[in-house]
Amino acid sequence: MAKASPLLKDELDIVIPTIRNLDFLEMWRPFFEPYHLIIVQDGDPSKVIKVPQGFDYELYNRNDINKILGPKASCISFKDSACRCFGYMVSKKKYIYTIDDDCFVAKDPSGKEINALEQHIKNLLCPSTPFFFNTLYDPYRDGADFVRGYPFSLREGVPTAVSHGLWLNIPDYDAPTQLVKPLERNTRYVDAVMTIPKGTLFPMCGMNLAFDRELIGPAMYFGLMGDGQPIGRYDDMWAGWCIKVICDHLGLGVKTGLPYIWHSKASNPFVNLKKEYKGIYWQEELIPFFQSVALPKDCTSVQKCYLQLSKQVKAKLGNVDDYFNKLADAMITWIEAWDELNPSTTTAAKLSNGSSK
Amino acid sequence: MAKASPLLKDELDIVIPTIRNLDFLEMWRPFFEPYHLIIVQDGDPSKVIKVPQGFDYELYNRNDINKILGPKASCISFKDSACRCFGYMVSKKKYIYTIDDDCFVAKDPSGKEINALEQHIKNLLCPSTPFFFNTLYDPYRDGADFVRGYPFSLREGVPTAVSHGLWLNIPDYDAPTQLVKPLERNTRYVDAVMTIPKGTLFPMCGMNLAFDRELIGPAMYFGLMGDGQPIGRYDDMWAGWCIKVICDHLGLGVKTGLPYIWHSKASNPFVNLKKEYKGIYWQEELIPFFQSVALPKDCTSVQKCYLQLSKQVKAKLGNVDDYFNKLADAMITWIEAWDELNPSTTTAAKLSNGSSK
Repeated sequence: MAKASPLLKDELDIVIPTIRNLDFLEMWRPFFEPYHLIIVQDGDPSKVIKVPQGFDYELYNRNDINKILGPKASCISFKDSACRCFGYMVSKKKYIYTIDDDCFVAKDPSGKEINALEQHIKNLLCPSTPFFFNTLYDPYRDGADFVRGYPFSLREGVPTAVSHGLWLNIPDYDAPTQLVKPLERNTRYVDAVMTIPKGTLFPMCGMNLAFDRELIGPAMYFGLMGDGQPIGRYDDMWAGWCIKVICDHLGLGVKTGLPYIWHSKASNPFVNLKKEYKGIYWQEELIPFFQSVALPKDCTSVQKCYLQLSKQVKAKLGNVDDYFNKLADAMITWIEAWDELNPSTTTAAKLSNGSSK
Repeated sequence: MAKASPLLKDELDIVIPTIRNLDFLEMWRPFFEPYHLIIVQDGDPSKVIKVPQGFDYELYNRNDINKILGPKASCISFKDSACRCFGYMVSKKKYIYTIDDDCFVAKDPSGKEINALEQHIKNLLCPSTPFFFNTLYDPYRDGADFVRGYPFSLREGVPTAVSHGLWLNIPDYDAPTQLVKPLERNTRYVDAVMTIPKGTLFPMCGMNLAFDRELIGPAMYFGLMGDGQPIGRYDDMWAGWCIKVICDHLGLGVKTGLPYIWHSKASNPFVNLKKEYKGIYWQEELIPFFQSVALPKDCTSVQKCYLQLSKQVKAKLGNVDDYFNKLADAMITWIEAWDELNPSTTTAAKLSNGSSK
């Protein structure tokens, strides 16, 4: 019997940030091998990263990033997995799936191996429902629907821009929680996908994440982290807050829940604490900021929204720490670099803005 | 070995609206027998409702309701399960659990019978987190916590006012969906409890519902439905929209998810369509109304919030249909009746308002 062709085979890139040989791909071979990989090598560019045979990939180290972006390479973090967003920028595909190299294939409660990528694609290809909560979760799933009392005018949903997957085994805790609960493991398989409602922020983890580059790519910037920066481990959080307010503004959906991956090893909580501690108190000002961000009506493209957001970051967070002035500048550089590498999408965005006037 | 005493045994009433003998209680005996039942008999008051031996209960039929409330009995629906809210009013306990008489004990995936009441009590006794989404669902549950990026200042949560449980087997669909999918059954057990975020409305079903009377009781009015009214099957929905905007205003939490009950029989979709059809189009105006309701700061008690809401219903929905003028008046009558039957909570509310000035 012929196998069905893998979903979106030619329309999706898998982005993997790494500093080591990619042996973890062996376990993913049945699911990832048909797809193209973009490997972003962090740290020492002279180190050779081994990729298991049979995978189709391109690999970028720091030298490549500097060569391609020139002075604009300053917006790409170094010695931090935030560097992965360079992969989003150089991709030419409509969809991205990004995964950490310490994530393995999880099993569902029946013992079956979970094809995480396939579930992400399903999530992205089916609409979101951000305007009203459905108590039976994803109403488009087999065996589910909209429940009594769900307005019919909202049942078409909106396009899904982001699919946020979860983790069995090692949960994604901050350093203080890791320190307090070193033995806690996530063993609960929650069989649900849901839309995060409009107006609600969430902590987006970059470990197991998929998105539609055309819908939200230019906002998926993982900020300035790691080498030379006062903070780490807030790259995905920052991106998550930015994409959420922009998705809310543009009427796009963000889903969370399935699929699970198996997260194999906890990072060192002491090292994490050092990276995180400024974020832990800055965050108390960041959340109210993002909760109150209002984007003007004429921000009709992701780029316009993102540049507007960078202005507000400078105006309202610059006094929290000078870091946010640097970050606001880097957000602009990121958009410039994105547009340089993606001239067609820029044109498309401009055209669609033009026609909406 | 001595059994642990049932949780909140003397602080919770179980409210059951019915028109038939309560044989369904046999299945619930191990879980419900320690608690006090308030049975609200709908329809012909001369009919005798049999309650299985051993249960401690009080029963009210229409004659009792008329006797107790006098002219104010007009706010209690007749020939509709909305009459159940009379039970909320006459209870003297802090907590209410309400369940329909076609709901049976469900089993979890391991085959164990689910003590729905116990799970509701757990939900009510542990805080809610309406201001920020936690991707691992209820952070207070065993084996879970707040994930990285969740602001520490929000980790205490807020008091939980409402626990909304779900249904296996027959899902709670509207008439059109019932007609289109007559054979659909809910077989998916989603092992999660979550807080419905602030600012998000949801379709609250009254089949399997618990709440804290002291925190939200006076807003748990199921409206005017059934006999003499142009609409049915929107009683719980109406209550759900009202309690949600009031909980959001007062900083209280609403949870949904576990526990499941087994919903045994679908109501007749043709009869339902007749009851619902006005609601189906009115709803398209009700949702934007509730999404934009703003309660003034001086609404510091549930009663004040509810009276304010009734004013806005009259002002903004009165032109949709004259029914909403009647409903707005009934909302006032309901509060008057509530305060008459619950003088101590009224005093408490007044005292707490006074002290907050």
